[in-house]
Amino acid sequence: MPQNIFPLDSAKSFAEQEKLGHNRWHPDIPPVYTVKPGDTFRVDCREWFDGAIKNDDSADDIRDAPLHKVHTLSGPFRIEGARPGDLLVVDILDVGPIPQEEGPLAGQGWGYTGIFAKKNGGSFLTDQFPDAYKAVWDFNGQKATSRHIPGVEFTGIIHPGLMGTAPSPSLLKTWNQREAALIATDPDRVPPLALPPEPNGAILGGVSEQDFDRVASEGARTAPPRENGGNQDIKNLSKGTRVFYPVFVDGANFSVGDLHFSQGDGEITFCGGIEMGGFIDFHVDVIKGGMEKYGVKENAIFMPGNVEPRHSQWLAFSGTSVTLDGEQRYLDSHLAYQRACLHAIEYLTTFGWSPEQAYLLLGAAPIEGRFSGVVDIPNACATVYLPTDVFNIDIRPGAGDPPQIDAGIGAPHSSFNG
Amino acid sequence: MPQNIFPLDSAKSFAEQEKLGHNRWHPDIPPVYTVKPGDTFRVDCREWFDGAIKNDDSADDIRDAPLHKVHTLSGPFRIEGARPGDLLVVDILDVGPIPQEEGPLAGQGWGYTGIFAKKNGGSFLTDQFPDAYKAVWDFNGQKATSRHIPGVEFTGIIHPGLMGTAPSPSLLKTWNQREAALIATDPDRVPPLALPPEPNGAILGGVSEQDFDRVASEGARTAPPRENGGNQDIKNLSKGTRVFYPVFVDGANFSVGDLHFSQGDGEITFCGGIEMGGFIDFHVDVIKGGMEKYGVKENAIFMPGNVEPRHSQWLAFSGTSVTLDGEQRYLDSHLAYQRACLHAIEYLTTFGWSPEQAYLLLGAAPIEGRFSGVVDIPNACATVYLPTDVFNIDIRPGAGDPPQIDAGIGAPHSSFNG
Amino acid sequence: MPQNIFPLDSAKSFAEQEKLGHNRWHPDIPPVYTVKPGDTFRVDCREWFDGAIKNDDSADDIRDAPLHKVHTLSGPFRIEGARPGDLLVVDILDVGPIPQEEGPLAGQGWGYTGIFAKKNGGSFLTDQFPDAYKAVWDFNGQKATSRHIPGVEFTGIIHPGLMGTAPSPSLLKTWNQREAALIATDPDRVPPLALPPEPNGAILGGVSEQDFDRVASEGARTAPPRENGGNQDIKNLSKGTRVFYPVFVDGANFSVGDLHFSQGDGEITFCGGIEMGGFIDFHVDVIKGGMEKYGVKENAIFMPGNVEPRHSQWLAFSGTSVTLDGEQRYLDSHLAYQRACLHAIEYLTTFGWSPEQAYLLLGAAPIEGRFSGVVDIPNACATVYLPTDVFNIDIRPGAGDPPQIDAGIGAPHSSFNG
Amino acid sequence: MPQNIFPLDSAKSFAEQEKLGHNRWHPDIPPVYTVKPGDTFRVDCREWFDGAIKNDDSADDIRDAPLHKVHTLSGPFRIEGARPGDLLVVDILDVGPIPQEEGPLAGQGWGYTGIFAKKNGGSFLTDQFPDAYKAVWDFNGQKATSRHIPGVEFTGIIHPGLMGTAPSPSLLKTWNQREAALIATDPDRVPPLALPPEPNGAILGGVSEQDFDRVASEGARTAPPRENGGNQDIKNLSKGTRVFYPVFVDGANFSVGDLHFSQGDGEITFCGGIEMGGFIDFHVDVIKGGMEKYGVKENAIFMPGNVEPRHSQWLAFSGTSVTLDGEQRYLDSHLAYQRACLHAIEYLTTFGWSPEQAYLLLGAAPIEGRFSGVVDIPNACATVYLPTDVFNIDIRPGAGDPPQIDAGIGAPHSSFNG
Repeated sequence: MPQNIFPLDSAKSFAEQEKLGHNRWHPDIPPVYTVKPGDTFRVDCREWFDGAIKNDDSADDIRDAPLHKVHTLSGPFRIEGARPGDLLVVDILDVGPIPQEEGPLAGQGWGYTGIFAKKNGGSFLTDQFPDAYKAVWDFNGQKATSRHIPGVEFTGIIHPGLMGTAPSPSLLKTWNQREAALIATDPDRVPPLALPPEPNGAILGGVSEQDFDRVASEGARTAPPRENGGNQDIKNLSKGTRVFYPVFVDGANFSVGDLHFSQGDGEITFCGGIEMGGFIDFHVDVIKGGMEKYGVKENAIFMPGNVEPRHSQWLAFSGTSVTLDGEQRYLDSHLAYQRACLHAIEYLTTFGWSPEQAYLLLGAAPIEGRFSGVVDIPNACATVYLPTDVFNIDIRPGAGDPPQIDAGIGAPHSSFNG
Repeated sequence: MPQNIFPLDSAKSFAEQEKLGHNRWHPDIPPVYTVKPGDTFRVDCREWFDGAIKNDDSADDIRDAPLHKVHTLSGPFRIEGARPGDLLVVDILDVGPIPQEEGPLAGQGWGYTGIFAKKNGGSFLTDQFPDAYKAVWDFNGQKATSRHIPGVEFTGIIHPGLMGTAPSPSLLKTWNQREAALIATDPDRVPPLALPPEPNGAILGGVSEQDFDRVASEGARTAPPRENGGNQDIKNLSKGTRVFYPVFVDGANFSVGDLHFSQGDGEITFCGGIEMGGFIDFHVDVIKGGMEKYGVKENAIFMPGNVEPRHSQWLAFSGTSVTLDGEQRYLDSHLAYQRACLHAIEYLTTFGWSPEQAYLLLGAAPIEGRFSGVVDIPNACATVYLPTDVFNIDIRPGAGDPPQIDAGIGAPHSSFNG
Repeated sequence: MPQNIFPLDSAKSFAEQEKLGHNRWHPDIPPVYTVKPGDTFRVDCREWFDGAIKNDDSADDIRDAPLHKVHTLSGPFRIEGARPGDLLVVDILDVGPIPQEEGPLAGQGWGYTGIFAKKNGGSFLTDQFPDAYKAVWDFNGQKATSRHIPGVEFTGIIHPGLMGTAPSPSLLKTWNQREAALIATDPDRVPPLALPPEPNGAILGGVSEQDFDRVASEGARTAPPRENGGNQDIKNLSKGTRVFYPVFVDGANFSVGDLHFSQGDGEITFCGGIEMGGFIDFHVDVIKGGMEKYGVKENAIFMPGNVEPRHSQWLAFSGTSVTLDGEQRYLDSHLAYQRACLHAIEYLTTFGWSPEQAYLLLGAAPIEGRFSGVVDIPNACATVYLPTDVFNIDIRPGAGDPPQIDAGIGAPHSSFNG
Repeated sequence: MPQNIFPLDSAKSFAEQEKLGHNRWHPDIPPVYTVKPGDTFRVDCREWFDGAIKNDDSADDIRDAPLHKVHTLSGPFRIEGARPGDLLVVDILDVGPIPQEEGPLAGQGWGYTGIFAKKNGGSFLTDQFPDAYKAVWDFNGQKATSRHIPGVEFTGIIHPGLMGTAPSPSLLKTWNQREAALIATDPDRVPPLALPPEPNGAILGGVSEQDFDRVASEGARTAPPRENGGNQDIKNLSKGTRVFYPVFVDGANFSVGDLHFSQGDGEITFCGGIEMGGFIDFHVDVIKGGMEKYGVKENAIFMPGNVEPRHSQWLAFSGTSVTLDGEQRYLDSHLAYQRACLHAIEYLTTFGWSPEQAYLLLGAAPIEGRFSGVVDIPNACATVYLPTDVFNIDIRPGAGDPPQIDAGIGAPHSSFNG
């Protein structure tokens, strides 16, 4: 069984570990370990906020979450012989929460979902949900339940939210330039349009003291997905998946983090998956010259595994690219998906859940979000599919009255004013 | 078995049929037939261009397609007792091509996919594919193959692209106002931002002569999906599906058309499903007061059927919201899906398909398009999933060279200059 | 679309049709039509009892069913160029009930399931259910419901119960000899061990008058599956399936019949599928020398289609090879499956269904029957899986009391004594 | 995460562990641990032969396997408050091989499949395969490959082969009496009809010295499945499964063992799953009076989990109840399944696998075995389904020649004669 090449001690912070990971992308962060094509190995991952979020009934920790410290990534791992132009083949053999531990760290038998406040990160529906909310989930084998969202239970589709290879110097430069140009269009926007490099809070693995300030001031933030993979938040990268990453630097320098016990398509609450730390087992290989051979010059391609949770009945909601104020937008799928999600939330409230409970659920449960019509001017059509077996009551529309759940203590709430 | 309440004679044009349908949305188009809640019935549907597209090896018909004449809709069908505020429950019992006919009309054993030219409608990737292209598909039981795209064969996910209820006068007014406002922002754009009412080519069912001009000048075009359902192009509305439509006028006045033998999520080539005429069997019912009761005040909700084609292995491509020119856009899922589709197209060309063959295939085959990350500023992440069993060769990346197909005669091409 | 090469007129009996089928297996029954490899064609099928079973609330017709007249088979169809030693490739393109007809013939919008009486055919559990019972099912699109079995509704897995190629003279002789030897071990058994050739009621297609008596006295009964396929009653031979049949005579002489709207594994009530007439569309091809090349010298092999109804939750029952009297049998899977089915029946009665309703349901619904342990001396273990979405109530075991259905008028019953 | 209440040290034999399990069924074996309804806990399991089978290229260990020592069971575990007449609800939360260990014990990264020799246990096809064979499988995450069976790779469907509750004294007596009666009909048969109590090799947990001989002479062997569950070898009892066991003694006294990394329906090679040790996580509950309430008086019922490996294409083989010698048997499903399996084996040999490689594969891979026709006198019809994605080559029949694999070193073989 796989050797753990990046063990983490749950009693220590991410920065205090024997092997130090990183939370910025930079080609000069040296590999923490070298493996060979064909190797199988295990890596521990810390939850993305390194323990800042608690298993309690307050959302203050979500409101005040230290975004400059994310994501705590394990790696980089050098793959011997990988060269720029190759494709790195990554098999996810297994992935799960921290084995056999109970405790205060997410992944020790529990995880959380958060709606981020508009003033601290925001979320997909931040105009409708400007405050912070939290839901804590308990793991019971493959399944999750929450005292903050009664009446639901589902099998997790466990996956890493973030995996990727290191950028080359020129690719990093491209990122920083294009993102700076975007920020410059509205530098004071709340929430911001993008996050520039931020030395404060940077963890840079084995970068030497003399290089630290330079690398910290250049290192790309880990929030967005980019050409190297990164924070793609694809829920289907679960066990059994094979991913093909472009290689931009010698050795590929692969990193991983941001494990989720489950997630809906889009991770719509921002911190929308069920966040946790845990372990992940990999097998790696290299396709020489694969970027050119297969035309995969940027952005990972992948084959999802064959052991995803099976669902057979779905209730789906649609939305189009008209704003809540009635303004017609031109083929805006992003807006259409927002509208579809808002429709789903409004629907669920007729059964007794609060809007924020419904929103948290859509971020955490294995919902599917699809592009349904992208050419029928002027309206894009997007759809969101809820597996009906997530719910303990029958949520299908019928002639009678919708059954009512007891919303319980509700989702913890925290605002900057209150 | 269900009575056919809207039969079509394949030897006659849509306007010459005994029962006349319509191709605009308007509350004043009278019902062509009345059914009761609980009734089961069959409706024939004409392909959306009423026979203008031929089973041949030229794309001139796609280039010159008469967009002002679409969509040829069957209906409206009045459901006795349905009132504004109700939900209309529509079960799709069965749907298929024209039974037991062979001939020149799409649906008579064949169908087509078209990439529309930028100057006549455009498509999802119109900047990369400005000309017109066509692929003709032959139906063999549940499966489709094309002489224009060798090396692929797949089971159709047959569905109606367009179903919906009639708008109320005020809803129609809202549509026309908001779309006019959008058009006014760039009235000469090619392709246009939206399509205003167009009396030329209007077919209005039983509208009286004295009302015709008024209704024709007010009637909303059928291209976009809207609050009433409409041209949603949701591939999963296949047999066994139950849809819930808001009711805006007495009797609901339900219409249907634009059948597809198959389609990928997004119908990305504009005429991207495999277009055909055929039949559809319905069961209808009404949930009194359902719009309020379930919070479904606009946009249909639905439960997909349980007999969709089964696939177990997928190859997926991702894209982010960076333009081809390298410009960073803010959380633009529409762009991210374009980039994911372009990645898939580039990948498929390494096996010998031309870019337009690959594009046509993505429009027609049962690909899935998903919102994967919608909050990770500044990059949205979208993914497109191709079922690998669509291909006669193994398209998975490997250490050897990609196997090469014979692209054959290619996809017919037609441009306005040539 | 496919030409119908074997049309049936629902107003006439099977023997009065323009093209005459057959109800015995014999190499001397001449082909009724010749097709070529690569051809696509439609065939109508009559329900297996040619209309003897009625859409009413009596089981007398089941009690007195004329077993000597079954199965009414369409064919034989000669495939040009097929020779003994080849494999006949049969694609089921589509299959369904009689299109667009309502009426008194099974397949005209309805079908039936019967438990045969011990004195007339018997069934899998004939010792526990010695009398005749019937359930009539109404078809609503893809779904079936029954006034005789309230509380259930399911999507049909439509398939032909019986397809096969003609036996060679020597193969027919083998059949007759080995079955006669079995009958001879207990010739008076009720129900019989096997059915010998029976001239009474024989329909032999185009057999000439001079050959009729001979062929009728030699022709094998169609009840059992044999080397040529035959009455395999495999529910998964639904649309999209490809079957490979051994060819024993020039032209293969392929026949088909016994359509089912649905069936559980084993067709345990004997007349256990939902019996109906209808149509089936085929594509045929030939693999030259395929029997030797693939080692398929007897018994069809097949690949099920990919559009079977999807189920995701099952409740399963197990049984072992101990008789109801407590006698231990040695690795008897047949008995173990009987015990598993009896357990399922007993379970369902706790919800209010009568034992015969439960038994009829297991024969008709898409249950799965599996060999689970066949080597663990002395007990075989068999399991039967019920998809829980068949039931309108929640049939899963829980802490509360089982919900009770209203069993309604029950299943019609008829016995020889009463 | 769950506490391990039955840890095993891989460096010690089963009898030397701190907590002692058992290998016989008897009500007087005292519980090794007590849990409460609602509890979650982990249990380690030793592979069924306690390390007698080696990771090498000889089948001598299979030939000489010590059958009197099996199965090494973990338990019994007492569930507080469970009383005879209740149903014990067992959720399998997780199950897998020995975590993070490599070594000589099956489960430490590898497992094995064996065909048992006719003179030592036999197998489902023992007349055709009278000698011993072995295949060793390597685990790579969720997947298994074997140096003894090249050209195949599949995702394991991990499950416990054996779980059950303790028999009451009267139930144990029933077992011993009915099995003795069977043995008495042919006491010298090879392989035997059943296995009587065997004091030699008995491990009886905490049974006191004074009771040991009595209990050892009464204790039922663990090979067969019985009313208490037992060695059911149901491959679908994988993670996420809920099983309902009848309770026959106070506390239920639940035991578990015989983990399999994978298995085909029937476990046809006798030692047919991929045998291994490992861990299993349970959640337990009790339904008071459930045996009567749900009519579950014997034999477990269960609901399979929703994370089983997904397959979408199958190649199926059928068999009927005619012996290889041509003798017609009456509705013998056991024989029909043997014939179906033999057909599958013969088919696979046309691709280059040896018959014993094919046989071992059918025992280990997730094949499905179904009862297809159980009433069509005189022939039962059974079918076996092979997922085509198990094979690295395309095994579907076609017009060309079957591709040939390199059978490699083959499956180790050992006979009693040489």
